[in-house]
Amino acid sequence: MKMRYFDHAATNPLHPAVLEAMMPYFKEEFGNALSVYDLGMQARDAIETARARVAELVNSKPGTIVFTSSGAEANNFALRGAALARKQQGNHIIISKVEHHSLLNSGRFLEKQGFVVTYLPVDKHGLVAPDVLKKAITKDTVVISISHASREIGTLEPIKELTAIAHERGITFHADAIASVGNIPVDVRELGIDMLSMTAHQFYGPKGIGALYIKEGTRIVPLIYGGIQEGGRRAGTENVAGIVGMGKAAEMAREEMPARMTHVRHLRDRIIQGLSGIENVYLTGHPDLRLPNHASFVVEFIEGEAMLLLLAMKGIYSASGSACSSKALKSSPVLLSLGVPTALAQGSIVFTLGRDNTDEDVDYLLNEFPQVVKRLRDMSPFAKKGWDQGGKSDTCYVGG
Amino acid sequence: MKMRYFDHAATNPLHPAVLEAMMPYFKEEFGNALSVYDLGMQARDAIETARARVAELVNSKPGTIVFTSSGAEANNFALRGAALARKQQGNHIIISKVEHHSLLNSGRFLEKQGFVVTYLPVDKHGLVAPDVLKKAITKDTVVISISHASREIGTLEPIKELTAIAHERGITFHADAIASVGNIPVDVRELGIDMLSMTAHQFYGPKGIGALYIKEGTRIVPLIYGGIQEGGRRAGTENVAGIVGMGKAAEMAREEMPARMTHVRHLRDRIIQGLSGIENVYLTGHPDLRLPNHASFVVEFIEGEAMLLLLAMKGIYSASGSACSSKALKSSPVLLSLGVPTALAQGSIVFTLGRDNTDEDVDYLLNEFPQVVKRLRDMSPFAKKGWDQGGKSDTCYVGG
Repeated sequence: MKMRYFDHAATNPLHPAVLEAMMPYFKEEFGNALSVYDLGMQARDAIETARARVAELVNSKPGTIVFTSSGAEANNFALRGAALARKQQGNHIIISKVEHHSLLNSGRFLEKQGFVVTYLPVDKHGLVAPDVLKKAITKDTVVISISHASREIGTLEPIKELTAIAHERGITFHADAIASVGNIPVDVRELGIDMLSMTAHQFYGPKGIGALYIKEGTRIVPLIYGGIQEGGRRAGTENVAGIVGMGKAAEMAREEMPARMTHVRHLRDRIIQGLSGIENVYLTGHPDLRLPNHASFVVEFIEGEAMLLLLAMKGIYSASGSACSSKALKSSPVLLSLGVPTALAQGSIVFTLGRDNTDEDVDYLLNEFPQVVKRLRDMSPFAKKGWDQGGKSDTCYVGG
Repeated sequence: MKMRYFDHAATNPLHPAVLEAMMPYFKEEFGNALSVYDLGMQARDAIETARARVAELVNSKPGTIVFTSSGAEANNFALRGAALARKQQGNHIIISKVEHHSLLNSGRFLEKQGFVVTYLPVDKHGLVAPDVLKKAITKDTVVISISHASREIGTLEPIKELTAIAHERGITFHADAIASVGNIPVDVRELGIDMLSMTAHQFYGPKGIGALYIKEGTRIVPLIYGGIQEGGRRAGTENVAGIVGMGKAAEMAREEMPARMTHVRHLRDRIIQGLSGIENVYLTGHPDLRLPNHASFVVEFIEGEAMLLLLAMKGIYSASGSACSSKALKSSPVLLSLGVPTALAQGSIVFTLGRDNTDEDVDYLLNEFPQVVKRLRDMSPFAKKGWDQGGKSDTCYVGG
């Protein structure tokens, strides 16, 4: 059966040019980038070329880019590193309620270290209101972290405006831009931001490599201590092939972005228009301020996991934001934060598009999806008896 | 010019079978291991197969292996994670003076968190004496970390005996086994150890992937918070290809270890015998209790960096333990800990052997090395005037 991959927020296949760029570093160019002889020097040069390409993707200078092993590591590094570095100045942190677990759980870690964390509410579209942020700031606030784009509902936050509010008070501002970098233009200078997390596998680079942008002068302590790699900011023998792959993926993303965006936006709009017409199916996230490749919904009376599995049987790969690793009945915390009722939040389904998707893929989805919904509603006791009949969900919205 | 690679402690080339095993995960098998459909399931299965292979390499069960992005990350995770988890029971940590910077600097981080760290002295061969460890233990000691094998001097520590001492007092014991796992038999059950760090690129696996063995029941908090990957102990989208590569490298290491060890020991003994005959050249580390692929020396009146560069010009790639990223004149802290005089410690040179080295490589080295030494001595003011004439070293002993 032909695969229709609508889960680009979980991960992307490698761009063929990326794999090609990586291959020499799995073969003859195997040097350790710290070695003084030519084999080491070539690895160092390759890393610096990649760093320049990643910097260019976000309109920055190479020296501001620190490679990490994932977006999750970049998020941990940013929030905890900046908070610990500024501990003497204050012990208050602000993050939004719809952040990724790498930030929410880093917040909990910091609480154990004596910090106070405010979890900021969002509106029904997932937006952080500038006024709400302003009111949450205290004289002790040292770091604010708000995601640039939500992986689960696609909403784009007004980062430029939020950063300006932080900077009026001398507060360090971080954005998780894992879902946006490489998919839409992200310009750190225009945003004015201090730190920004990204990951290669969200834009056709390899898994196992990410980066944190750190503006010159931003105070941060390392997450991983050790050698002098990454200017002493992140230790460990460099994943040279992975870094080279991220650099190439960044270069390809810059080149192909205008065409990719037009392509996925067209497909996304078709999905939103097609599925919004089905009874009891509702778009989640902001209708306009959203990632161009992102279409997310809640479907009443159906569990997300059941939809995922039935769709997968038809070759359609998608995601659900309904619950993460729970053995108990659990709804998506992000959707609950938008005010979506608990029962409805279980019926989350997310389609994220990529460069290889076609109109024919979307035709197929639009034809199959209503049948899946009908079949599940016919089977489900919920549609007749209501949600309190129970059930459980083990699915997880992924992509960190 | 033919390359003679004697720097396997810095990094290894990929085993051809490892690259072959990785390739599908750079192509069609690109799924996120958390996705519920078959593409995700296949990634999960591949990760679990790799985990079983790594576990087998150290004679453990799959559930005890947590994948990390490097040996440095594993070391940070182990020392800091176990210390923070046991903070209520005591605030004293013991590590040896010859540990890698990922442990020494993690110790400094813990000092800022209210811990007291004892840096344990070693004897002239780099050995930690069991009695010295016993005396350093206090009622507040919660974690001890001693490396299994030194990357810089090759010495193998009596981990089984040291672990037993720790366990008599209920103390968690960790060993940095980055230089030993995959190169000599390492059996965590026989050692009785609680945690053990390893990294794939030290045994012909890819860079960017390592692991921490954690015995069942060992208390530890994560270093990287976020999703449910690695049983909630290490977040971040899995580096599936890297993990698969580490698994395959572990399998190959088990199969090929007896032959590899015999091969490199023979070559190492030839180097030690050949170079020890040169005037003012001294073996460092233990003469017998050392890694079978490891030959390290100090050469009087010569700087390590100068040797490295001249050797590299002849196609001989090696390392020096003389200084790490210093702009100032700096001797190897490890060698100084053995009691090697400051001046002599600058003339460090390390040859580490691998499966591709040949007798002909060693013939070449034994022929060229004395000429390099002679040339540098003739050029150097140090041989005549003494070390206090100054000079600087930017080289770095690598392999973390």
